[in-house]
Amino acid sequence: MTAHKNYVIDCLQYCNWSEKVFRQMRKGGVDAVHVTICYHEMFRETVSNVEHWNSLFEKHSDLILHGRTADDIRRAHESGRTAIFFGFQNCAPIEDDIGLVEICHTLGARFMQLSYNNQSLLATGCYEKEDTGITRMGRQVIKEMNRVGLVVDMSHSAERSTLEAIEISERPIAITHANPSFWHPALRNKSDDVLKALAQSGGMVGFSLYPHHLKGKSDCTLSEFCDMIAKTADMIGVDHIGIGSDLCQDQPDTVVDWMRVGRWTKSVDYGEGSAANPGFPEMPTWFQDNRDFPNLATGLRDVGFSNEETAKIMGMNWLSFYESSFCPQ
Amino acid sequence: MTAHKNYVIDCLQYCNWSEKVFRQMRKGGVDAVHVTICYHEMFRETVSNVEHWNSLFEKHSDLILHGRTADDIRRAHESGRTAIFFGFQNCAPIEDDIGLVEICHTLGARFMQLSYNNQSLLATGCYEKEDTGITRMGRQVIKEMNRVGLVVDMSHSAERSTLEAIEISERPIAITHANPSFWHPALRNKSDDVLKALAQSGGMVGFSLYPHHLKGKSDCTLSEFCDMIAKTADMIGVDHIGIGSDLCQDQPDTVVDWMRVGRWTKSVDYGEGSAANPGFPEMPTWFQDNRDFPNLATGLRDVGFSNEETAKIMGMNWLSFYESSFCPQ
Repeated sequence: MTAHKNYVIDCLQYCNWSEKVFRQMRKGGVDAVHVTICYHEMFRETVSNVEHWNSLFEKHSDLILHGRTADDIRRAHESGRTAIFFGFQNCAPIEDDIGLVEICHTLGARFMQLSYNNQSLLATGCYEKEDTGITRMGRQVIKEMNRVGLVVDMSHSAERSTLEAIEISERPIAITHANPSFWHPALRNKSDDVLKALAQSGGMVGFSLYPHHLKGKSDCTLSEFCDMIAKTADMIGVDHIGIGSDLCQDQPDTVVDWMRVGRWTKSVDYGEGSAANPGFPEMPTWFQDNRDFPNLATGLRDVGFSNEETAKIMGMNWLSFYESSFCPQ
Repeated sequence: MTAHKNYVIDCLQYCNWSEKVFRQMRKGGVDAVHVTICYHEMFRETVSNVEHWNSLFEKHSDLILHGRTADDIRRAHESGRTAIFFGFQNCAPIEDDIGLVEICHTLGARFMQLSYNNQSLLATGCYEKEDTGITRMGRQVIKEMNRVGLVVDMSHSAERSTLEAIEISERPIAITHANPSFWHPALRNKSDDVLKALAQSGGMVGFSLYPHHLKGKSDCTLSEFCDMIAKTADMIGVDHIGIGSDLCQDQPDTVVDWMRVGRWTKSVDYGEGSAANPGFPEMPTWFQDNRDFPNLATGLRDVGFSNEETAKIMGMNWLSFYESSFCPQ
C-alpha cells in the first residue's frame, strides 16, 4: 500500500449507469463506488443485472473495472478508472437458499442488506411496526456471509435487528448509507445507540446525500451536512465514518416506485416520499453528481477536519474496511 | 513453473463424489480432475450443482480445492490435494443467453460441450441423423467462450460440427473424452480428420476408459489401450494427447438414464448401451478407479513411450493447455 495515496470511495450509488456518469466519476476523482445491483430481484434476475454490468465493463473498460478486493481500488486509481463494487439492498437474491450466499460473493457481491424496508427472511425493515430482530435463517446467513466475505449492511433495517446484527456478526458490519437520527429523525436514519455499537464493533457508517435523509431535505447546506459529520465524529470517532451518497442520478421516477413497491403490494407506497412528492427529490445544489465530491472535501475541512481526517472520511476509512472485509475467513 | 514436477491430470470424470473417491484420487497421485457438473441442467439447476461442490470444498478442504487456473494445480500438488475443475457436458446451463457464458466462467466453468448427443442451440450431437454444423448462436457463443476463457469441448458432437468448431474457434479446443474411430468405430469416437485438425490447431484429445469407447469394451486390455494411444501419437504427435477417463464411479444406473434421456423424451434411449445392457458397463480390471492411474503410466512406458512422453500424456500436455486456455483474452 502506497501510504501517501488518498483514495475517494463512495459506498453507495444507484445511478442510471452510462458513459456520462462514469466520466463524471473520473472528473470527481472517485476511485471506487459501491453500486446497488438489485432491490427486489430474485437470484436469476440479479444474475441478469450482473450480465448487464459485465457488458458495461467490456464497453467502458477505459473508465471502470469490476472491483472485488481493496487492491482493485489501487489498480483503478493507477489506470485512471473507477472500481465498481456490487451490493444488494435486500436479501431477495439469495431466495431461501444459504448456498447462494457464496455464489453471489463469487459473482462479485460485497455488501448485502439483510432487509430493505419490509420484513425479510433474515431481518426486519425500518418501515415495519414490530421489529422481531434477526430471524433463525438470518443468524445462519450472517455466519455464512462472515465466512465468505460478504458484508452485512443494515442501512434499511429496523433498530433491534440492526443492534442484533452488530452483536451476532463476527466481522464488522456496515450501514452504507444513512445519517444520524439526532440530526434528522427520518425512519431510515440511525439512533445514537446503533451508531455507537457500530463503531465499537469496528463497523462503518456512510453519510447519505439523499434529500429525505437530510435536515432541510433538498435545501440542506454543505456546512450543515458537514457539521452533522463533525458531531457524529465527536460521538463515535473519525475512524468509522465515510460517504455513502445514495446518488440516484438520471433515474426515472418509475425506479423509485420499484424500490418502494417492488412486487410486494398492488397499492402505492410512498416510502420516504408522499402523495404530494412521490418522485425523486432534488439533490442539494452542492451535490448534484459525482463531479461534486471535491465540494464534500472542502466542506469537511471548512468545519475543522484536518487533511488527514478529511482523507479518512472521503475514502480511506472505507479502504481499510474493504481491505479486511471482502476475503473469505 | 517448476520444470521437474510432473502433474497427473484427468480431463473428465463424473463420479458419485465422496470422501472415498477423493481419497482414491490422492492414492492415485491425481493432481487435477475436470469434473462434469451438469448434463441437461439449465442455469439455476447448474448453480445448485456448484453450491453442492462448494459444500464439498468446505467439507473436504484437506483433500480437494476448487481449480480455476493452472496454478491451482501446483497449489494442489504442493498441499497434497486434488484441484477440481468444472465443466458442462452440454450448453443447457447458458440457456438462450450469451451473457451466461461469462457468468458460468466466473462460477468456475472451464469446459463446455457445445452439444451432448442431440442437436443443441449451438451444434449437432453425434446421435442426430443430420449434422448442420455450428448454428448462428453457436458462432457467437464460441467467440464469447474464447473471450472469457471457457474451453469449447466437442466430445459428444457430430463430425461436421466438430470440424467447424475447430475452424471457427480462435483458441484451441478440446475433445476431453473420446477415442479414435480407427480403433473402435463407436459413434462417440473421432475420425482421423477430426483428430488431425484438432492437433494442427493446438487442441487436445483425452483418451476415454469408458468401456463403450473401447475396442473389446470391458475386456479391452491395458496394452491394447496403450497401443491405440501409440498409434494416435504416430498420427498426430505426442503433444496433443492426454487422458479423459470418463470415470463414472459409484453412480446408480438412474444416472446413466439422466445422461441419455434427460427430459428430452418420454421414451427410453439406450445411448451407447442397449436394452440388454442398459446400465453402466463394467470398467476394465486395470482401471477401476483413481487409484489405477499409475497402471496407465506403466502401460504407456511398456508400449515404448519415454518417461518424458509418458509424463506429457499423463498430465503435462493438459497442464500446458490449461495454462493457455482459462484466462480471459
